[in-house]
Amino acid sequence: MSDWRLALRFPPLPGARTDILVGRGNLGSLGREVRRRIPADAAFVVTHPALRRRFGAAVARGLKAGGVRAVAFGEFPAGERFKTVETWARLLRRIAAFDRGERRRLVVGTLGGGVAGDLGGFVAATYRRGVPFFQVPTSLLANVDAAVGGKVAVDLIAKNQVGAFHQPFLVLVDLETLRTLPPAEVRSALAEVAKYGVIADARILDLLERETNRILAKDPDVLGRIVRRSYEIKASFVRSDERDTRGIRAALNFGHTFGHALEQVLGFRWRHGEAVAVGMLMASDLEASMAGRAPDYRARLETILARLGLPTRAPDVEPRKVLEAMRHDKKFVSGRNRFVLSSRAGSFRLAEGVPWPLVRKAVEGRLGRAERSP
Amino acid sequence: MSDWRLALRFPPLPGARTDILVGRGNLGSLGREVRRRIPADAAFVVTHPALRRRFGAAVARGLKAGGVRAVAFGEFPAGERFKTVETWARLLRRIAAFDRGERRRLVVGTLGGGVAGDLGGFVAATYRRGVPFFQVPTSLLANVDAAVGGKVAVDLIAKNQVGAFHQPFLVLVDLETLRTLPPAEVRSALAEVAKYGVIADARILDLLERETNRILAKDPDVLGRIVRRSYEIKASFVRSDERDTRGIRAALNFGHTFGHALEQVLGFRWRHGEAVAVGMLMASDLEASMAGRAPDYRARLETILARLGLPTRAPDVEPRKVLEAMRHDKKFVSGRNRFVLSSRAGSFRLAEGVPWPLVRKAVEGRLGRAERSP
Repeated sequence: MSDWRLALRFPPLPGARTDILVGRGNLGSLGREVRRRIPADAAFVVTHPALRRRFGAAVARGLKAGGVRAVAFGEFPAGERFKTVETWARLLRRIAAFDRGERRRLVVGTLGGGVAGDLGGFVAATYRRGVPFFQVPTSLLANVDAAVGGKVAVDLIAKNQVGAFHQPFLVLVDLETLRTLPPAEVRSALAEVAKYGVIADARILDLLERETNRILAKDPDVLGRIVRRSYEIKASFVRSDERDTRGIRAALNFGHTFGHALEQVLGFRWRHGEAVAVGMLMASDLEASMAGRAPDYRARLETILARLGLPTRAPDVEPRKVLEAMRHDKKFVSGRNRFVLSSRAGSFRLAEGVPWPLVRKAVEGRLGRAERSP
Repeated sequence: MSDWRLALRFPPLPGARTDILVGRGNLGSLGREVRRRIPADAAFVVTHPALRRRFGAAVARGLKAGGVRAVAFGEFPAGERFKTVETWARLLRRIAAFDRGERRRLVVGTLGGGVAGDLGGFVAATYRRGVPFFQVPTSLLANVDAAVGGKVAVDLIAKNQVGAFHQPFLVLVDLETLRTLPPAEVRSALAEVAKYGVIADARILDLLERETNRILAKDPDVLGRIVRRSYEIKASFVRSDERDTRGIRAALNFGHTFGHALEQVLGFRWRHGEAVAVGMLMASDLEASMAGRAPDYRARLETILARLGLPTRAPDVEPRKVLEAMRHDKKFVSGRNRFVLSSRAGSFRLAEGVPWPLVRKAVEGRLGRAERSP
């Protein structure tokens, strides 16, 4: 029996805020933009060696020009397989050494794609119980998805199993950094853009249809439009559901339950966007079999993905394995499945406890060569 | 130049809340109290081997009786020197293995003193980007200080250098667990209680004076009064300054800037509370030399600490070393010192940029044998 109790309620935290700035050749203003928001006099920038060689000097110059006196880089080998607790701990030791002696007003930055953002963001979330951080996303995928939202993490047994919510105060995008991206990386990111077309704004599908060639040629004007509209959409989801607890941010998972399972079964030979492309089509097929008719966007989505050079079917793996991988999806609670579905471009709904035979049918229909048109 | 910008503001988070329950023999109601607040069906309890032997069965029974079906313990070797990134990573692997297969509604618990709370709390803060956690504090120090407030961390180069803010939803105290605490541990915790007497409520000094013998005999009624009043005071500071950014929670550092430096110079041979006892007296001496007269509580505090068996002076170490250790205090910003001072029992103030010669004098006066009465 408890004979005494006390309730401690926490007042709302002072409003956090992320400012997203998109421009061309704007790295030179980085320090000014940082110090306009945070009284930082030292920056620790997490990046990998190739990006440091390409943009490190410009970033350091930009920071110092704005009054951030000390700049250090924390490097890690590129690639998701280095997004580990061990790499994080190594970066923490680096930052602690940089921060030694006189205490500084420290800010953490990330320069790179999703891995740099996740890793550097988790360093920022945990060093001294959280220091402010900014992102300079240099991949198209980070720019249309990962750079806003505050989800930071490293992998353990499962992907992103250890992490935190920590919002960057600034995301500064220099579209010039996107010019030299490998075509396969651009294509992969465009799967996420097509996703926004399905769940949030059908006009994005129009844009992807109309401007396919300029997009694939990495025309900075078109990429700029895509990046800005993606930030707006992603921000609208994050704004209403910061901690991903209200079933709104979950919509961003459209195609991902299928996609993650495919990635796993294919041993991560496919890029994330490739798996998501097929995953979105599986989700469209699931919608079709639940509603009794194909959703309005399905044929169009399939054409768009194919023209962007993304797959519309997966290799001939065992359906059982895909379903098995799906059962461990971290969005499922206590064994009950949950899918993001869409019956009309620009909208979504969550469906829980979908009959597994329908899920199986949706998976099977996109595995191996097509025997007939879907 | 940035030609496009977007501001993303986060709405206040839904109000977090910590419930603190103090009773005798109340471990049996643990599961019911957890499930009244959180729909958990699996609990991972972080503790060390000796405590698991003593209370593990009662905790597991209490959890299961309330409907928490699966219970696992994550053990770590007792002691601050195991409060590391490595121990944290090991516990995360344990919890990930426990959480495998069907996804469970998971809750993390801590059973132990400050180290279990810091370590288990940081596991809870970071696993799956944060899962709910409860504390069962079994040391007097945790009960008068560490168990509320949400500061969780592990040590890196400096103490608590890596961590997060993560509020427990429940703190359940069974006063029976305090019965067998070693006397030295009780004395050390009472230094923090005396601190509350100085900065928040002079009546605590009355209680410590009046009930010294029953306190040292670990009389559960008196310990219960001390624990409850300490929770109230700690909660009032945390409530107004959750993230320790407004200079209110900083008051809890009274005596600690001196104390931490002493701990470091003495190579952690002294208990925290012993160093804080002398640190509080140094802070009183600093107040005296700044104000030109001794604060009202100084003589009384010295008598109380001595009667509780706590030191009032430190060994004869070099003052220079103590001052040097102090310069790295994490509460100092950009080299500017900051001390919590109190001119009258029940109140505090922050003093920044105190002249170092005065600080030096306050340190020197309490090192080595007393040559004259202070």
